[in-house]
Amino acid sequence: MKDVMRVGIIGGGLMGREAASAFARWFVLERFPVRVELVAVCDLQDTLLDWFRQIPTVRLLTKDHRELLASPDVDVVYVAVPHHLHESIYLEVLAAGKDLLAEKPFGIDLAAARRIRDAATTSGRFVRCSSEFPFLPGAQRVIDIARSGKLGRLLEIHSCFWHASDLDPSKPVNWKRQVKFCGEIGVMGDLGMHVVHIPLRLGWNPARVYAQLQKVYTERPDGKGGFAACDTWDNAQLHCDLEVSGSTVPMRLEMKRLAPGATNTWWVEVLGTEGGARYSTAEPKTLWIFERQKEQRWIRIDLGFQTPFPTITGGIFEPGFPDCFLQMWAAYAAERAGALDGRFGCVTPDEAVRSHELFAAGLESHRTRAAVTV
Amino acid sequence: MKDVMRVGIIGGGLMGREAASAFARWFVLERFPVRVELVAVCDLQDTLLDWFRQIPTVRLLTKDHRELLASPDVDVVYVAVPHHLHESIYLEVLAAGKDLLAEKPFGIDLAAARRIRDAATTSGRFVRCSSEFPFLPGAQRVIDIARSGKLGRLLEIHSCFWHASDLDPSKPVNWKRQVKFCGEIGVMGDLGMHVVHIPLRLGWNPARVYAQLQKVYTERPDGKGGFAACDTWDNAQLHCDLEVSGSTVPMRLEMKRLAPGATNTWWVEVLGTEGGARYSTAEPKTLWIFERQKEQRWIRIDLGFQTPFPTITGGIFEPGFPDCFLQMWAAYAAERAGALDGRFGCVTPDEAVRSHELFAAGLESHRTRAAVTV
Amino acid sequence: MKDVMRVGIIGGGLMGREAASAFARWFVLERFPVRVELVAVCDLQDTLLDWFRQIPTVRLLTKDHRELLASPDVDVVYVAVPHHLHESIYLEVLAAGKDLLAEKPFGIDLAAARRIRDAATTSGRFVRCSSEFPFLPGAQRVIDIARSGKLGRLLEIHSCFWHASDLDPSKPVNWKRQVKFCGEIGVMGDLGMHVVHIPLRLGWNPARVYAQLQKVYTERPDGKGGFAACDTWDNAQLHCDLEVSGSTVPMRLEMKRLAPGATNTWWVEVLGTEGGARYSTAEPKTLWIFERQKEQRWIRIDLGFQTPFPTITGGIFEPGFPDCFLQMWAAYAAERAGALDGRFGCVTPDEAVRSHELFAAGLESHRTRAAVTV
Amino acid sequence: MKDVMRVGIIGGGLMGREAASAFARWFVLERFPVRVELVAVCDLQDTLLDWFRQIPTVRLLTKDHRELLASPDVDVVYVAVPHHLHESIYLEVLAAGKDLLAEKPFGIDLAAARRIRDAATTSGRFVRCSSEFPFLPGAQRVIDIARSGKLGRLLEIHSCFWHASDLDPSKPVNWKRQVKFCGEIGVMGDLGMHVVHIPLRLGWNPARVYAQLQKVYTERPDGKGGFAACDTWDNAQLHCDLEVSGSTVPMRLEMKRLAPGATNTWWVEVLGTEGGARYSTAEPKTLWIFERQKEQRWIRIDLGFQTPFPTITGGIFEPGFPDCFLQMWAAYAAERAGALDGRFGCVTPDEAVRSHELFAAGLESHRTRAAVTV
Repeated sequence: MKDVMRVGIIGGGLMGREAASAFARWFVLERFPVRVELVAVCDLQDTLLDWFRQIPTVRLLTKDHRELLASPDVDVVYVAVPHHLHESIYLEVLAAGKDLLAEKPFGIDLAAARRIRDAATTSGRFVRCSSEFPFLPGAQRVIDIARSGKLGRLLEIHSCFWHASDLDPSKPVNWKRQVKFCGEIGVMGDLGMHVVHIPLRLGWNPARVYAQLQKVYTERPDGKGGFAACDTWDNAQLHCDLEVSGSTVPMRLEMKRLAPGATNTWWVEVLGTEGGARYSTAEPKTLWIFERQKEQRWIRIDLGFQTPFPTITGGIFEPGFPDCFLQMWAAYAAERAGALDGRFGCVTPDEAVRSHELFAAGLESHRTRAAVTV
Repeated sequence: MKDVMRVGIIGGGLMGREAASAFARWFVLERFPVRVELVAVCDLQDTLLDWFRQIPTVRLLTKDHRELLASPDVDVVYVAVPHHLHESIYLEVLAAGKDLLAEKPFGIDLAAARRIRDAATTSGRFVRCSSEFPFLPGAQRVIDIARSGKLGRLLEIHSCFWHASDLDPSKPVNWKRQVKFCGEIGVMGDLGMHVVHIPLRLGWNPARVYAQLQKVYTERPDGKGGFAACDTWDNAQLHCDLEVSGSTVPMRLEMKRLAPGATNTWWVEVLGTEGGARYSTAEPKTLWIFERQKEQRWIRIDLGFQTPFPTITGGIFEPGFPDCFLQMWAAYAAERAGALDGRFGCVTPDEAVRSHELFAAGLESHRTRAAVTV
Repeated sequence: MKDVMRVGIIGGGLMGREAASAFARWFVLERFPVRVELVAVCDLQDTLLDWFRQIPTVRLLTKDHRELLASPDVDVVYVAVPHHLHESIYLEVLAAGKDLLAEKPFGIDLAAARRIRDAATTSGRFVRCSSEFPFLPGAQRVIDIARSGKLGRLLEIHSCFWHASDLDPSKPVNWKRQVKFCGEIGVMGDLGMHVVHIPLRLGWNPARVYAQLQKVYTERPDGKGGFAACDTWDNAQLHCDLEVSGSTVPMRLEMKRLAPGATNTWWVEVLGTEGGARYSTAEPKTLWIFERQKEQRWIRIDLGFQTPFPTITGGIFEPGFPDCFLQMWAAYAAERAGALDGRFGCVTPDEAVRSHELFAAGLESHRTRAAVTV
Repeated sequence: MKDVMRVGIIGGGLMGREAASAFARWFVLERFPVRVELVAVCDLQDTLLDWFRQIPTVRLLTKDHRELLASPDVDVVYVAVPHHLHESIYLEVLAAGKDLLAEKPFGIDLAAARRIRDAATTSGRFVRCSSEFPFLPGAQRVIDIARSGKLGRLLEIHSCFWHASDLDPSKPVNWKRQVKFCGEIGVMGDLGMHVVHIPLRLGWNPARVYAQLQKVYTERPDGKGGFAACDTWDNAQLHCDLEVSGSTVPMRLEMKRLAPGATNTWWVEVLGTEGGARYSTAEPKTLWIFERQKEQRWIRIDLGFQTPFPTITGGIFEPGFPDCFLQMWAAYAAERAGALDGRFGCVTPDEAVRSHELFAAGLESHRTRAAVTV
C-alpha cells in the first residue's frame, strides 16, 4: 500500500492548474512509492475555484487560505501567489504544521527569504521551492556530465532563461512588472531560481558578482485604456566568479524578459578543457556534448523520454512542460518520502536564500558599479 | 452538462496506458464539449490489467475482449493490438455497435482495410484511425501554410518518419519485425499512417508511386538466447507523383526504422515557388517558413503551446508527446460530437484505405521496378 | 626547377576568369611540383579579352580558338563554353595535341560524351572534367570516412546540388534554360557532374535509376522586353539502386535550380549502420559525422583550411569557392605530373561518360515511368 | 590609367604571405581604381625570403627593415611582427615617409598606441590597422542593419572572437603566450581589434567596462623537450555599458583562446526591440535577421559572394578568409585613394587607441574588481 500525499493549493492560476493536471495522471509514474491526491484549493476567483470542481478528489474549495490550512486532510501545501504575499502565507503554512512546495522567489527579498528559511528549519517541515526545467532529460544529462569528473579544468558556466513576450509594448502590465508586488529584484525574482538551481546544487557558489540590469519599457497598457508604470528590471545579467581548485571561473547568469525571439528558452552550458555539455529548451530533444579528442567535437544526441522518474510513456517520445512539471513534483514527493535515491531534488530553502543573497549582491553591484562579494 | 464519452481499451500496452493518462487529465482541455471516462480495459497480461486498477473510473478489467464489447457502459473502443488482429477485432467492435478509434495500419493489408472500411460504412459507427503528430502546434502551422494559397506553384512535398533504435543489432526481435504479425508492408504498416495523414487530408493523392524498400537486418536475438528471423522491410521510400494544376509534383514519403541518430523524427515539408514550411519533431519547438521576397528567407519561429484544442498550460511552454496524444483524442471526441469546427481531424477509414492502396502499389512497384498507378 | 604547365583558356567568362585568379596566386600552394602560367585566352567578346590584358603572362588574346590551339606555347586548354559546343571544340583541342580540362557536362549528350572520351583515349592526352566541391576540406573528410570501412552496412547515399536563383520568375532566360544549347538533360547537364563525381569515384555505380524530372517555369524574360521559351528540366531527382555486397542500397541524386532558399548548396551524405558523414556548402565549415556507440551520435566538427594541397593560408581559416577552384586545378596539375599521390582527382572521361549514361537512363525512366538499368 | 600602390612587407610570415596572395590576384577586383604591386619584403628568415622570390614584382628582399624603408619604390608598408616591436618599427615607417597598414594591436600597450597614433597624425601619412572579418558579406549586412534605424530600442550587443587550438595542452608555447612579446593585455592584444572594430565604428563607445580575465594553462612545451611559462591571459570577457539615448545598454566583448570546439569563430550580434542581426564565421554563409512582427522571427538568409568590393567571382559562391583579406586590402587602398565611397574602412589610429583604452581599463577592472570608466 502506497503512502498518500494529500495536497492543498493556494493560488489556482496557471501553475495551480498545472499541478492538478500532474496529480490527475500521477499513476503514469512507474513503481513510484507515493500516491498524490489534490484535496483542497484556495483562490479568490470563483471561476478558478469552479474549474477545480472537475476534480473528484477535491473536497475543499475556499477563498480563505486559513480554512485550507486548518484542514486536517492537507499534508502539503503548494502556494503560487504574487511575491509580496510569499512570506506571510509561507509562514502561515509552516505554522499550520504543513509541508510546503513554495513558488519562487521564496519571499520578495533576501530578508523575507531568510525568515522563511529560518521558520522552515524551526518547524521541521519539508520545504522546497519550485524549478521545473532541471527535470527534463537533457538537463539531467548536463548535470551528470558536470558531475562526471571528465570536464578537465572548468572554463566557464552559463545558465540563462530568456523570454520574449515582453518585447511587445502592447502587452498589458501585470504584477510582475511592478516592484511593490514583484520586488526590487524584478526579473531576477521571476526567472532567477530557474537559473541558479543547477549551479548551486553542483556547488558553483559565486564568490562575487557584477550585475548589468536593464529597464527598457517603463510603462505598459493598464488594460483599462490607460497606461501603468513598470518599474522592475526587464533584463538582468550576473557576471559571477567561482573559485574552483585555485582558479577563478566565470559563470554568467542571464534572466531576460526581452530576449528577441525566445519563447521560453531555458538553457545551461558547462565548459571545461576536456569536456562540456549544453542543453536548451529551444531544442528540447537535443543534447550537446563537448569532447576534446584529437579533434574537438560537439556531439548531438537526439534525446527521448528519459525522465528521472520513469513513466509509462515510451522512451523515444518527446517530453513537454507538463511532463517536467510532473517530474518536479515526483522529486518533491520522493524526497519527502525519503526515496530520492540520489536523484536531483527540488530547490532547498538554503539554496533559495543563497539565490536571494546573489540577487541582493546584484542590486548592490548595479548601484556601486563594482563586483560585490556574495 | 457535458456529454460523456465512455471508452473501453482493447490492448493495454504502451498506447493503451497513454490513453489512460490522457483521459485522466482530460479536464485540462478548455471549454471542451465532451467529458471522457475510461470504463473498461481488456488485455491478456495480468500485470497490465493490474496497472489499470489505479484508475477509479475503470469498472471492467477482462482478458476477453468480447466481454468488453458486451458492456453497455462502453461507447467507444480503442484497439491497440498487433496488425494481424486488426480486422477481426475491429469488425467485432463494429458488430457490437461501438464507435472505434483504431490503431494503424487499420488492417494487415489492403483487403483487410477495405473490409474494415466497408463494415464501418455499413455500421454507421464513428470510426477513425490514430495519428498523433499532426496535432502538434508546428504541424498545425504547416497545414495552415499549405492551405493558405501562398505557396505559388507547388514544387515538392516530403513527409517522413525516421526511427533509429533498430540500428542496434542486439535489439531483440518483436512482432513488428515479422510479416505474419506486421504484414507484408512491414515498416509501412508501422509508420506509414503517420506520413500519409497530412498529405491525404490536404488532397495530395499520389497518381503513381515508385518504391525503394530495404531489408537490412534479417535476424535478431529472440530474447531466449537464440536468433529469430526478421522478414519485414526496415526502410521504405515512396517516390510519388502528384498531378496538381497540370503539373507533376514529386512527393517523397519515407518510413524508416534505420535512420541514423533519429530517435523519433517525424517531419513534413511543403515547398512552393513563393512559400513553404517545414516542421520536425527533432526540433519540436521550431517552425521553419519559407518566403520568397526580394531575398529568399527561411524564417525560424520559436513555437509554444498553441495546440488546436486549448488547454490550461501556458502558451509559452513546450508540448510533448503526451500532449499531442491528448489532442488527437480531443479531435476524435470533438468530431464524434459534431464539434470539430473545421479543425484537423483524425484519419478517416477512407484515408486509411487509400494509405493501404499506396503501400500495396509500393510493394508492386518494388517487384516490378516500375512506377505503379495508385 | 619546377615543371611549368602553360594554360590556354577558351571561354573567358565566369570560370575562365576564376582560373586566371587561381593561376595568379598559384605560388600559395606549398611544395607543389608544377608551376602554372596562363598564356593564351580566346573569347568572342572584346571586353572579356581586354580583362585578361591585366595578366602579364598572357601572350595571346584571340577570338579564334583555332589560333589558340595552334600556339606551341599552350600545353593545356581549359574550355568553358556552352554545352552544344563541347564536342567540336574538345575534339579540336585533342586533335591539336593539347591536354584538356573540360567543363561539364563533357558533351551535350551521351553520344557526344562517348565520342569525346574515345578521342581522348586515342589521343593519349591528359583529359579531365571539372568539379570543384569535392576539394573542400569537408568533402574530403566525407570521402575519407566513406572509404574508412567503418560504416557498417551501407544504408543510403545522398548527393545533391541545389540552386535557388531560378525561383525568381523575372530572372532572364539564358542558354542553360534552352535545350538547343544546354541539351535534353537540362539541369542534369549543369549540375549533374557535381553530384556524381564522388559517388562514381567511390565505386557507387547505379545498377538502375528511376527519375523524377520537373519543368516549372516554361518561359522567362528574354532581356529585350519580351519572353523566351525555357524548355529544359528545372529540377531532377534520380532514385538509384546500388548493388553492394548482396544488398540493394538507395542512392538519391538531386539537381535543382528551384530549391527554396538554397544559394549554392552542394551536399553529400553517406549513411551506414555503424557510421556516416554529411557535408554541405550551406555550412561550409561544418562536418557532421555519425557514430553508433551505446548511443547514436551526430558529431559536429568545426573545420578549418585543411585542403588536400596545402597552401600558405593558416589552418584555422575559412576556405571559399576560389580556394576549392584552385585546389581542383592543383589536382589536375598534380595528376598530370604523376604527383597525385593517392589524393582525390578530377573527373575522368570514363566517369563523365558514366554520368551521361545515368542521365540518359534518367530521361528514359521519366518517359517510361520505370526504373532503367544503367 | 590606374594608380599603383607599391607595397613593402616587414614580416613575411602567415599574414605577409596572405598579402602576397591577395596582391597577386588583385585584378579580380572589378572596376577598382588602384593597382597594387608587392615590391619589397623584409624578414629575418631565409626560407621566408626565398618564398617571396616566386613573385615577379618583388625587387627587394632583405633582412634589414631599414633597407626596405629606405627604398623609394615603396609607398605603403605592411608590418606583421610581434607586438613588442610594433612601436619602434611603426614609428620608423612613418619617419621614412611611408604609409602604413599596421597589424593589431597597434603597439604593445596603450602608451605605445598613443605614441604611434600621435606620430601618424604628425606625419600626415595614411595609417590604418588590420581587421579582416568585417569585410565578409555577412558582417557587412549586420553593419547595414545596425545602421538602418530599424532596431527599435537597442537591447544588447555581442562581439566575440573564439579560438580553440589552445585547449590542446601539448601545443607548444609561442610569443603570443608570453607577456614580454605579447603585452600585459594578452589575448586582448591578439583578438581584441577584431571584436572592437565594428562596435567602435558604429559609435558604440563603452562608458565603462568590467572585465573577467582568465589564465588557465600556465606553461606549455617549449619545443625543446622542456616547458616554458605562459603568463598571458587566455580568455577575456569585457562587460561594457553603452549610454545610448538615455539608456544603458550592455555590450559584451569576448576574446578567447580557450573556446571549446571553436576553430575560428568570429561573431557579432546586435539586438533591439524591433530588429536585430547576427553573423558568425562558424556558419560563414548564414545571416540571421530578427524582426518583431505579430510574431517574432529569426530569418535565415543563405549568403553568397556579396563582398563590399565586387570581384569576378560569381555572386552565389562561398567567400573564404583569403577573400576577406583581399577585401580588407581593397578597403585600405580605396580609402587611401579617396575612393572608399561610404564603404566600411579599416581600423583608424584613433580607433586603435580607443581599443587600447578599453583593454587598459579591462586590466584595471580585473585588478580592482570594479567597473572602470573608459
